[in-house]
Amino acid sequence: MRGVMMYGPGDVRVEERDAPEIVEATDAIVRLTATCICGSDLWPYRGAEPLAGTPQAMGHEYIGVVEEIGADVTTVKVGDFVVGSFVASDNTCEICLAGYQSRCIHNVMMGAIGTQAELARIPLADGTLVATPGQPAADLIPSLMAASDVLGTGWYGAVAAEAGPGKTIAIVGDGAVGLCAVLAAKQLGAERIIIFSRHPERQALAKAFGATDVIEERGDEGAARVKEITGGYGAHGTVEAVGTQESMWQAINATRPGGYVGYVGVSHGVELDGLNLFFTSVHLHGGPAPVRQYLPELINLIWDRSIDPGKVFDLTLSLAEAAEGYRAMDERRATKVLLTL
Amino acid sequence: MRGVMMYGPGDVRVEERDAPEIVEATDAIVRLTATCICGSDLWPYRGAEPLAGTPQAMGHEYIGVVEEIGADVTTVKVGDFVVGSFVASDNTCEICLAGYQSRCIHNVMMGAIGTQAELARIPLADGTLVATPGQPAADLIPSLMAASDVLGTGWYGAVAAEAGPGKTIAIVGDGAVGLCAVLAAKQLGAERIIIFSRHPERQALAKAFGATDVIEERGDEGAARVKEITGGYGAHGTVEAVGTQESMWQAINATRPGGYVGYVGVSHGVELDGLNLFFTSVHLHGGPAPVRQYLPELINLIWDRSIDPGKVFDLTLSLAEAAEGYRAMDERRATKVLLTL
Repeated sequence: MRGVMMYGPGDVRVEERDAPEIVEATDAIVRLTATCICGSDLWPYRGAEPLAGTPQAMGHEYIGVVEEIGADVTTVKVGDFVVGSFVASDNTCEICLAGYQSRCIHNVMMGAIGTQAELARIPLADGTLVATPGQPAADLIPSLMAASDVLGTGWYGAVAAEAGPGKTIAIVGDGAVGLCAVLAAKQLGAERIIIFSRHPERQALAKAFGATDVIEERGDEGAARVKEITGGYGAHGTVEAVGTQESMWQAINATRPGGYVGYVGVSHGVELDGLNLFFTSVHLHGGPAPVRQYLPELINLIWDRSIDPGKVFDLTLSLAEAAEGYRAMDERRATKVLLTL
Repeated sequence: MRGVMMYGPGDVRVEERDAPEIVEATDAIVRLTATCICGSDLWPYRGAEPLAGTPQAMGHEYIGVVEEIGADVTTVKVGDFVVGSFVASDNTCEICLAGYQSRCIHNVMMGAIGTQAELARIPLADGTLVATPGQPAADLIPSLMAASDVLGTGWYGAVAAEAGPGKTIAIVGDGAVGLCAVLAAKQLGAERIIIFSRHPERQALAKAFGATDVIEERGDEGAARVKEITGGYGAHGTVEAVGTQESMWQAINATRPGGYVGYVGVSHGVELDGLNLFFTSVHLHGGPAPVRQYLPELINLIWDRSIDPGKVFDLTLSLAEAAEGYRAMDERRATKVLLTL
């Protein structure tokens, strides 16, 4: 089967590799309908993060049809269309039952498997995959694809930021996750949704998703603007969807004392000074999103066409064109690239 | 009037200084019945933190009798016995109404006033002071004194750690705040309360306050012990009541993914690596405790003799003996020193 391999910074190739096989009785093999390129895939692409292996199989987002199941799998069957999280989880341990499947005591990061491929082995299939009500119409594919990571991650960020009725929620980051956080904040009932963005297309999509205010300033200046338009108080909650030192403090400082910062951008070079943090009095919560927790609800919202998170994909290519997809995202010609099979 | 002045590390003197006067119509003057020495007073005493002035008036904890009120003060009257928070607050702004009086938009840190003295000017008296139901019996003085800071701070830590029925709560720090956090976790219904402590007397008081488990190991080893005795998961919530790099990570690593860390130790030299924090998936919340929020409830619990947090004072001296009080706390001969007037 064919899959995406990264040989080093800027060097992505689509190559033949061995088809996966059932290893554990809890595994499933999924034939992918679509996969995509994540903002986090750009860190090694830009040399900002080392590769786990050379070459490294890439990708952790996936939707598709169950091709084979292990002897112990009971909740999905061959032929089911499934969406899975980017972290495999047993969904039975105390951590999973508390809603933190991404930190399951038996968690497997799907990035270690590489789902930018024709087939993928999904560990802990019962606790990881959710079947859709039937075979999806073609127009639902991008949104279901988004549910596998960026939508679930933006959703988690908005939940961690305590988005809800009457609340003002700010979102740092206008990438796919930030835009999905806007959509999530809107669904969760937020009254005012502030997006930080300098890109006209992303501003437009943010507004379509429910943003009420756009701020173009960044860093301390951006945080000060939020305070300015919220009576001096700051946002009730802020989603951080970038992962840099500047974006973290922008999010923290945009938030009022006692408010909530949901941080879902994978941290790169972030160091939080304890004393400064202490005197912000914010709630800080984040990490890898427990997408599995939200999947049943998100699939329903997509199936009913209540939400259309697939709009974050602004470039669709075939798996064979993956290298061009990485280039387009790296050069910011695309926000998020869908790869079809 | 006499008050405590710090001239530099290790140099504490009780001196005559001008009696405070009403400055704003919202002020009150309180004649102190008792004050105390805080763990945070030891940072400048040890030279680990610069003084705000030389000399600096010390102290931010206080109980006593209202001697005079400004023209706008309505909720306390001359002669009332009052307990106040270590942060003055208007108790009417959005931040106060959300329960974060310590971060009131008009907050005044009482440390800037110096309450280790015979009299103190309390700004924003209506929003800061709470009158007790009457003049307290002598045996209630230490507990009411504790409510002004250490009890309210420990309580906030336990609330931030989401202490409640069925929960396992760990507490890092066996000083007065940590011990009060044990008491708070017990009052809030926690099932299992783990105290990290190597001091027999403090272990005994922690047990009297409700601790069920004592761990003598510190740092990573201490955190590992918590995981060991909680089925590999970690505590549901942990209170951090020290403020060092080691104690913060001990608290974070003792907590399960999705769990809650309430940090109330004023940070000294703490730097949190963003990526490590990201993958812990804990909720992190803390800062200066909004003691004012809890005062009415804490005063009632003390008045009813349901709780006895005054036990954290293991040395009582007169104000004139303040220098000996600082020495005793610095040398760890005392956990917490009460100064009477």
